[in-house]
Amino acid sequence: MTVDTIITHATVLTGTTRPAAGYPALPAEDTAARGTATFLPDHAIGITAGEIAWVLPTGEVDPVDLAGATVLDAGGQVAVPGLVNTHTHSPMTMFRGSAEDVPTASWFNEHIWPMEVNLTERDVTLGARLAVGEMLLAGVTSFADHYFMADRIAEVVADSGARALLASTYFSSQGTEGIARSAEFAERWNGAADGRITTAMGPHATYTVDDADLEATAEHARRLGVRVHVHAAESMSQTRSSLARRGVTPVQVLHDTGVLEAGAIIAHGTGIIEDDLRWLTPFADRVAVASCSKVYLKHAHSETPVRMLHDAGITVGVGTDGPASNNTLDVLESMRVLSLVQKMVHADATWLTSAHALDLATRQSAAALGLGDRLGAIQPGFRADVVLLDLDKPHLQPMHDLAAALVLSVRASDVTTVLVEGRVVVRDGALTTMDLTDTIAELNARLPGLTDTAHGRTIQDYAP
Amino acid sequence: MTVDTIITHATVLTGTTRPAAGYPALPAEDTAARGTATFLPDHAIGITAGEIAWVLPTGEVDPVDLAGATVLDAGGQVAVPGLVNTHTHSPMTMFRGSAEDVPTASWFNEHIWPMEVNLTERDVTLGARLAVGEMLLAGVTSFADHYFMADRIAEVVADSGARALLASTYFSSQGTEGIARSAEFAERWNGAADGRITTAMGPHATYTVDDADLEATAEHARRLGVRVHVHAAESMSQTRSSLARRGVTPVQVLHDTGVLEAGAIIAHGTGIIEDDLRWLTPFADRVAVASCSKVYLKHAHSETPVRMLHDAGITVGVGTDGPASNNTLDVLESMRVLSLVQKMVHADATWLTSAHALDLATRQSAAALGLGDRLGAIQPGFRADVVLLDLDKPHLQPMHDLAAALVLSVRASDVTTVLVEGRVVVRDGALTTMDLTDTIAELNARLPGLTDTAHGRTIQDYAP
Repeated sequence: MTVDTIITHATVLTGTTRPAAGYPALPAEDTAARGTATFLPDHAIGITAGEIAWVLPTGEVDPVDLAGATVLDAGGQVAVPGLVNTHTHSPMTMFRGSAEDVPTASWFNEHIWPMEVNLTERDVTLGARLAVGEMLLAGVTSFADHYFMADRIAEVVADSGARALLASTYFSSQGTEGIARSAEFAERWNGAADGRITTAMGPHATYTVDDADLEATAEHARRLGVRVHVHAAESMSQTRSSLARRGVTPVQVLHDTGVLEAGAIIAHGTGIIEDDLRWLTPFADRVAVASCSKVYLKHAHSETPVRMLHDAGITVGVGTDGPASNNTLDVLESMRVLSLVQKMVHADATWLTSAHALDLATRQSAAALGLGDRLGAIQPGFRADVVLLDLDKPHLQPMHDLAAALVLSVRASDVTTVLVEGRVVVRDGALTTMDLTDTIAELNARLPGLTDTAHGRTIQDYAP
Repeated sequence: MTVDTIITHATVLTGTTRPAAGYPALPAEDTAARGTATFLPDHAIGITAGEIAWVLPTGEVDPVDLAGATVLDAGGQVAVPGLVNTHTHSPMTMFRGSAEDVPTASWFNEHIWPMEVNLTERDVTLGARLAVGEMLLAGVTSFADHYFMADRIAEVVADSGARALLASTYFSSQGTEGIARSAEFAERWNGAADGRITTAMGPHATYTVDDADLEATAEHARRLGVRVHVHAAESMSQTRSSLARRGVTPVQVLHDTGVLEAGAIIAHGTGIIEDDLRWLTPFADRVAVASCSKVYLKHAHSETPVRMLHDAGITVGVGTDGPASNNTLDVLESMRVLSLVQKMVHADATWLTSAHALDLATRQSAAALGLGDRLGAIQPGFRADVVLLDLDKPHLQPMHDLAAALVLSVRASDVTTVLVEGRVVVRDGALTTMDLTDTIAELNARLPGLTDTAHGRTIQDYAP
């Protein structure tokens, strides 16, 4: 098979393995149980039509292949699978920094939802452009998005060369219109942009979409062969409130309405309790929880019970949440914060190793999007989403432990080159498919209109 | 007064104010109580012989001054006071990533202290060079250091143009030699490098230096007019252990031996209890706690009781701790983690505002080093330690809130220019006074020797 692109002289993270259940209790010598991250020094990656064809020692690459391909020399760099952001609201870059140091209810009711009344299609395009550019520059090649006016987001993804799983958000307060639009969007865009776009149904949350609509959602998802991307058990207080009002947890609601059976990305799940495992485990092959740790710190929530989910075999992905909560779309940072906070939560420095953190941000996050067979590893047959990071930076040296460096020392600015489907979308730290200068200027000019809440209206009321 | 350097067209963070005690309980409208960070748009900074002479709107700068000075155009950038790292062990860059995912006792007894047996003067020079370069590139202009062979560190600081408060570390197990060397070092280097170097006494900790030596330490500190930089109450278990063994907390030990009266930087203090406030508050003018939040997450400790200390009027500085614990020397990251984790610890999103976080990393950290009258603000009479950051990056845009951007969105790589004492030490993101290429190569070549623990020895036993 002839290859069109070859990356040479890289240290290649070919893949990770998920750690064993209960691994901190296993003997320390059993390093494999703690998860593995395999790095192959001075290797080359051959790419054919967007797919990884082979991974070989650079010295063993056929000179004929080298002569016929575009060659990217990655000497001094590490090649990692494209990072996957399992939960965000990309256009909300427009609200980055607009609702700071406030409790969750105020964040929704006094800031974000009143401002979202002002939203125009143009704002969504601009916000999505900025978000996709920011993510590509940070090595985030795929993201699971959840927002309004999703056609505009899909167009940006198609044009930019990025990959995304997109969902059109709705509330039951919109009547039948929102859910119909979400289903129609999911059907129309699934597989678009040469397969870079996949879709999901986008009910907002178990507290803003009623059970009948969730049942209809699950039916649409099954019919279309897509998953459901939904906020649920976002905080322990939501779980308590659901139990008090209805006698069931948000996760049981997802189960009883058929959402789990259809397959789901559960955003946050910080309020998932042990009893919920009986609803989740039967669908462990198609249900994942997207954990956005930085946001739980900022909004003073508890953390996703990552350890309980891990031990039960439930996939956990890394997410940023929207940039109005997180303030960045940096999956490297989100992975780092998640891994560190987990150690503190369990008062156990041996829990959530760097290899495990890398597995969460690559293989498990790919699996969360239902794309575990084609994303999250640099191996033959996987799609060629590859990120090169410069290891020669002072803050990464000297090099004792590459996995630890990628989890605890690296910065998004160390990303030099990004390929999606074998296409170079970032080169020398700059976007090749987008120029954000005008986007940023136009967004800043829009801020007075966007943030004006004198109309006194809101798109929804937060009272979960 | 003629100025030699002028920074023009910057948004200038002239200074911060410390929030009121108990501020989350005050009315939300009382924004001043939540701490302020004053940004002046399109301002210029005039510098004379290392000192800030004036801060003026760019349009009001005297053309004669402009003609006679070196002019740095900071259009599109924010100028912030040089960041201060209040606790590190800079040469430990050499051990970055060498002791991962292990509990504290193992970190000391099985990894770090056996490796430190191998330490040579050359290692310390190389490790300090890498550390100082990494910090300057990240806008960290001052750091409080605590390590062995401190003469080598002082030479690196002098040569690099950085600023530091240096202490030579000792244990009581070294007999009288360690303390004598620390006092001699503190005396010899205090005020060196045109005042960029100041010093402290460097007892390792309340559990490795006995009371008689701490009393002698305090005496040296008073005699020399320097502070004591010491690890104390590093974890709640240390406090419990001290109470069980001796009936006193580590902070009371510092009080009873005269260390607090002499003035102290207490590293970590995560085990400080409410009763300790009676020992700390009488010396609030000269005692500070250096909080290194990222490390407490990684080592699964509890957090410094920042809120209790704040409400009691005790200064809290931001520290990274050594790079073998933190994996970076990035004060922007440490400030971010501290601010986020504090919100979670208190389950209060309104606590530790971005303005407060900036105050901790600038004014309070400067005060922790005993330099609050000359560092931590961009105002006439302060030393000209100034950092410029590029605001035109996608991850910082659009701009709703500059304080939030600096705490929650910024990256160390956004630093373009760094001045210490008015001298440009980083320009266009590159060091002007150091080339680290050979340093990094030599350090990596040293790793096999550094990490060899076949000798079976250790420099000390961790059993606090």
